[in-house]
Amino acid sequence: MDTVSTNRAFGGTQGVYKHVSTETGTEMTFSVFVPDHAEGEILPVVWYLSGLTCTHANVTEKGEFRAHCAKHGLIFVAPDTSPRGEGVADDAEGAYDFGLGAGFYVNATEEPFAANYRMQAYVEDELPALIADQFPADMSRQGIMGHSMGGHGALTIGLRNADRFKAVSAFAPIVSPLNCPWGEKALTGYIGADKSAWRQYDACALIEDGARVPDLLVDQGTADDFLEGQLKPELLVEVCKEKDQPLTLRMQEGYDHSYYFISTFMGEHLDWHAARLKA
Amino acid sequence: MDTVSTNRAFGGTQGVYKHVSTETGTEMTFSVFVPDHAEGEILPVVWYLSGLTCTHANVTEKGEFRAHCAKHGLIFVAPDTSPRGEGVADDAEGAYDFGLGAGFYVNATEEPFAANYRMQAYVEDELPALIADQFPADMSRQGIMGHSMGGHGALTIGLRNADRFKAVSAFAPIVSPLNCPWGEKALTGYIGADKSAWRQYDACALIEDGARVPDLLVDQGTADDFLEGQLKPELLVEVCKEKDQPLTLRMQEGYDHSYYFISTFMGEHLDWHAARLKA
Repeated sequence: MDTVSTNRAFGGTQGVYKHVSTETGTEMTFSVFVPDHAEGEILPVVWYLSGLTCTHANVTEKGEFRAHCAKHGLIFVAPDTSPRGEGVADDAEGAYDFGLGAGFYVNATEEPFAANYRMQAYVEDELPALIADQFPADMSRQGIMGHSMGGHGALTIGLRNADRFKAVSAFAPIVSPLNCPWGEKALTGYIGADKSAWRQYDACALIEDGARVPDLLVDQGTADDFLEGQLKPELLVEVCKEKDQPLTLRMQEGYDHSYYFISTFMGEHLDWHAARLKA
Repeated sequence: MDTVSTNRAFGGTQGVYKHVSTETGTEMTFSVFVPDHAEGEILPVVWYLSGLTCTHANVTEKGEFRAHCAKHGLIFVAPDTSPRGEGVADDAEGAYDFGLGAGFYVNATEEPFAANYRMQAYVEDELPALIADQFPADMSRQGIMGHSMGGHGALTIGLRNADRFKAVSAFAPIVSPLNCPWGEKALTGYIGADKSAWRQYDACALIEDGARVPDLLVDQGTADDFLEGQLKPELLVEVCKEKDQPLTLRMQEGYDHSYYFISTFMGEHLDWHAARLKA
């Protein structure tokens, strides 16, 4: 692991790091905020998965998480959203919603994506091992959150690994790739036409199939341009009700899909994570 | 005035606006955050002047001011740092520290800069009149802050207009353009070789010449690469002591010149402004 940069911030260290991933076969960049702590102390870890077009940098610069992580003593990790670099396949037309910046937190099985697009394995296994090795992280206390495509990532990874994540939340998540154009395009491209293989990558389908966590927190802006066509929180409400999965969905009046929305509610999400990670 | 964008954020509205400035002869872009407020209510205004290379966007995205402005009920205005556009003169070699992005908050008298580089008049007079006209602003309660070149702007504008600004603070300001390479280059280029004309644009010289405000707050990182060569807070300490100008200078261990530094202490600066604007 190489250090790209470190900056003192909010009584802690905001770092950006890179390493060669064996899963993606590429150099991957990620950011980690570590609050100051006592010698030998290990801190709970909150994962933040970003949305389409983003890298680690968007939330690192605009997410306004550091004050809250410093207050609660939480490590905050922000991975990239896809493999990148020479030879990595991209959307045929360079669209923003597939390929680079749009890994959807799946392990691709379709060519030419299968070689590099292994973001599920990267985020679920390889990067956590690196974090455990290199940072003062208490891996027995992890939470996961994300935005949009990253909200989908957080919900699905959280639901598939309920033993590992004590807190799961999302900002404007894609709740069902099976039922929206972004999901249709991405999962067809990465996983293929057999939709039964998509269910492990669909929060609603996972809950329908029996996955369960103690509770979920979701914020969704009412002025989000993607609300009706892509995000469809009503599908999550419906399946959570049907399966008795506790869900707190907060419709936030007038908020859109941007980091102005995310940063506004970041503090409350981190309060919610801290309450569960430090219980 | 045209609206470029508005986003709901922290229980208020983050807007970006543009207008044609009669002072600079160019289209100027600026951002304004207005917290929700009662019908007819007017709110105190805090001005934030940005540093070299910046536009309104840097602090708007990375400054982490909105939570604090919302809490205190403060309007936050962030102007650009220079005129821009076709025909606007720039540094002969396109350097970052003169010309575009580097207006230094002066009224240039040297050619070819005199026509457009009127950032003093723009920030001191024209933009305040527009803000007073277009926003629910209580212009009897204004504070001013800034970073680096913008810290220089905040200190000098605040000191020259002590009747108008009830609070003046700065992050890593250039305290004396007369005594640093950035200032030498910029003021020679904009104002000319006669250094007596520079004194109105030099916080230390203004204090030496009798300007005074109730108090000043300055934060400065000890790991700032520009500390010794350009910023030199010791010159401000010295003249403030000599002239009995109250100054709170806080050397912040390990912090650099970036928005990671600014955002960390933004809340405390806004607390300080709120205490003086709402007294």
